[in-house]
Amino acid sequence: MSKHPHLVALGARIRAVRESKGLSQEGFAAEVGLDRAYYGGVERGERNVAALNLIKIAAVLDVEVGDLFPPTSELQRIKGQ
Amino acid sequence: MSKHPHLVALGARIRAVRESKGLSQEGFAAEVGLDRAYYGGVERGERNVAALNLIKIAAVLDVEVGDLFPPTSELQRIKGQ
Repeated sequence: MSKHPHLVALGARIRAVRESKGLSQEGFAAEVGLDRAYYGGVERGERNVAALNLIKIAAVLDVEVGDLFPPTSELQRIKGQ
Repeated sequence: MSKHPHLVALGARIRAVRESKGLSQEGFAAEVGLDRAYYGGVERGERNVAALNLIKIAAVLDVEVGDLFPPTSELQRIKGQ
């Protein structure tokens, strides 16, 4: 799928949290139980990742799901479709 | 799909926020741009709703995406798969 700006913003935030925890993309994907290529696509904003995977990602990162999403006000500035 | 307890908890929370705003399910689904039957399934925990729809739902409810999700600690108690 093409890169929706909201997904790019979400993926960048997930990547930033993962890196702040000192976790490699490969090791993290394995811990969450996601295919590494799929997970790479999530961080690049190429995947419209669904609720259950968002919950798993947040749990392994030990953050709230809300910490993975930019604020609604910022998302509205970014302008989705 | 069968009802995953995390999706049931998410859907219940989305419903509670919508009702707290005094919005009908039908009118709200239309405002978000979702099929009414699909959206009903989200509130019942039957749909693994994806990031872009979560962002749209939060925007129309004027809340953060994080307000739609139970805390990670609660989700872990509920025990997913």
